[in-house]
Amino acid sequence: MSGGGLITLAHGAGGKATRNLVEKLFLPELGNPLLEPLGDSALFDVNGSRLAFTTDSYVVRPIFFPGGSIGDLAVNGTVNDLAVAGARPLALSAGFVVEEGYPVDDLRRVAADLARAAERAGVSVAAGDTKVVEHGKGDGLYITSAGVGVVPRGVELGPHLVRPGDRVLVSGTLGDHGMAVLLARGDLDLEADLHSDTAPLHGLTAALLDVGGVRWMRDPTRGGLATALNELARDAGLAVELEEAALPVRQEVAGACEILGIDPLYVANEGKLIAVVSPESAPAALAALRADPLGADAAIVGAVRAEPSGLVLLGTALGGSRIVDMLVGDPLPRIC
Amino acid sequence: MSGGGLITLAHGAGGKATRNLVEKLFLPELGNPLLEPLGDSALFDVNGSRLAFTTDSYVVRPIFFPGGSIGDLAVNGTVNDLAVAGARPLALSAGFVVEEGYPVDDLRRVAADLARAAERAGVSVAAGDTKVVEHGKGDGLYITSAGVGVVPRGVELGPHLVRPGDRVLVSGTLGDHGMAVLLARGDLDLEADLHSDTAPLHGLTAALLDVGGVRWMRDPTRGGLATALNELARDAGLAVELEEAALPVRQEVAGACEILGIDPLYVANEGKLIAVVSPESAPAALAALRADPLGADAAIVGAVRAEPSGLVLLGTALGGSRIVDMLVGDPLPRIC
Repeated sequence: MSGGGLITLAHGAGGKATRNLVEKLFLPELGNPLLEPLGDSALFDVNGSRLAFTTDSYVVRPIFFPGGSIGDLAVNGTVNDLAVAGARPLALSAGFVVEEGYPVDDLRRVAADLARAAERAGVSVAAGDTKVVEHGKGDGLYITSAGVGVVPRGVELGPHLVRPGDRVLVSGTLGDHGMAVLLARGDLDLEADLHSDTAPLHGLTAALLDVGGVRWMRDPTRGGLATALNELARDAGLAVELEEAALPVRQEVAGACEILGIDPLYVANEGKLIAVVSPESAPAALAALRADPLGADAAIVGAVRAEPSGLVLLGTALGGSRIVDMLVGDPLPRIC
Repeated sequence: MSGGGLITLAHGAGGKATRNLVEKLFLPELGNPLLEPLGDSALFDVNGSRLAFTTDSYVVRPIFFPGGSIGDLAVNGTVNDLAVAGARPLALSAGFVVEEGYPVDDLRRVAADLARAAERAGVSVAAGDTKVVEHGKGDGLYITSAGVGVVPRGVELGPHLVRPGDRVLVSGTLGDHGMAVLLARGDLDLEADLHSDTAPLHGLTAALLDVGGVRWMRDPTRGGLATALNELARDAGLAVELEEAALPVRQEVAGACEILGIDPLYVANEGKLIAVVSPESAPAALAALRADPLGADAAIVGAVRAEPSGLVLLGTALGGSRIVDMLVGDPLPRIC
């Protein structure tokens, strides 16, 4: 990033190249105490209330896929970024960049998905904007959503609160969204009954916060579980040890991943969260997740260790252990 | 919009087709008490504070133009939408959709413009996201910004507060941004020393609110002064009468508009506001605007009348009067 160079798809993949772009280009220019470089929401105080604020752009292709559409993603993704910051979502915005010639009926269908997802998540789409670009200068439709939420008094989360011995939970099966979208493109000679998991997580996060002992939460979208936990390990200066056998992955997803040579740990999720909780809280946290249909497949998948600092390790069924690195390159462009 | 049909550039132009899209497609799906369909910011309460929230997408071409870049627009446009809602801007977000192959150095330049504009406006860019699309599926760079502000206690603005006899003020010359961008494209055989007026208006709006008697404010971007005042006339059920001789237009802008057959009343501004104020407050409001370099060319350009309801009229130097309609079609696509 030291001058010259062209943007590549990997810069948008959520892995190492994205982090590089943020740390070498955006942070030096835009760095300020509020900017949460790769976290989920920025937090700031207004008249004694703590607000959370976040944005995400969506360029998923195809725009409609089994289990949802770009409209669902734009709502749920922003709701989830607020939720894992401990916030209660209040209001969303949606900015549309539409390609000339896009069917009005498809735009209406996306708007309906957006509206239904917002209603399900209990938030209002309060602000919007539409720009149109010439045919050939877009790809149907891009949506950028932003969201505002309020963090209840007493809630504090962050990598600095994570301690060795803490447990790592996931709220359900991994990789469903990414593999469903990949297969929906239809350019692989592979069929499987896969559906995106796109869903709002604010109910699960509220339930976890009620249990207490929550240190850190994240929704593992682009780059998957592996990338999110690598960021945690790095930011906390600790290690995360996962148990391979404990990781919930649907058989259809595991099968498709194996055929394509993709590791489900790097595949995007759009309706799952990772929570790091104190060892004492872990059983109650697991029960709270499982009590919600969105968390029915929740599992304790690992623990935090003091060493080796900054790394994520995967313990295999045979007793071995390997390092799980951050995502490098972009095996699945435009997955969200 | 009753089924079928394709999106056209006019749907993004901010005029009649845009209003149609919002009213016939987005509102029926997304309608809720918070959604401010064509206003500048949504307003909602959090723990007793009134927040303003807004978003805009930017697809301007070229990305860099005399007087600014897409980075300046993304900051100033969102700051201005908050400001004309009476809010003090607090935090912004920026979502980037970058085309594969876009030069890293250009992206850095945009980020620097974004940062400098945010510093000038006294706000933080608190949240960001970057997505990359394949070469040929974008046009360099699109940015969607959103912003959160807080509305001081006692501030209330809206078309419902406008009364016959109120004065209409503009904070400076009209049409500078749109004509500067149009000429910067270089595909017209026309040269003139034009610069975008992109600038943050929160200082001007705060000064007006200090004076008092402010009923309604708007920053006339896409669709220009004519479209913004048509929306006001329609929403208030009143008429707006403009005096042609009072409208401030730079000679270079007027000349370029005449050659191209474009009416400067429809051309986008990115650093100007319209304010409707009580007749008693008008002189002090004008003085307050002119006291700021950004309002040096401010003028009282017309007044509100009871009839003919919903129309904007332009009184000419010869004593005649013509109806100024909303923007139809899009003479200047991708101006912001």
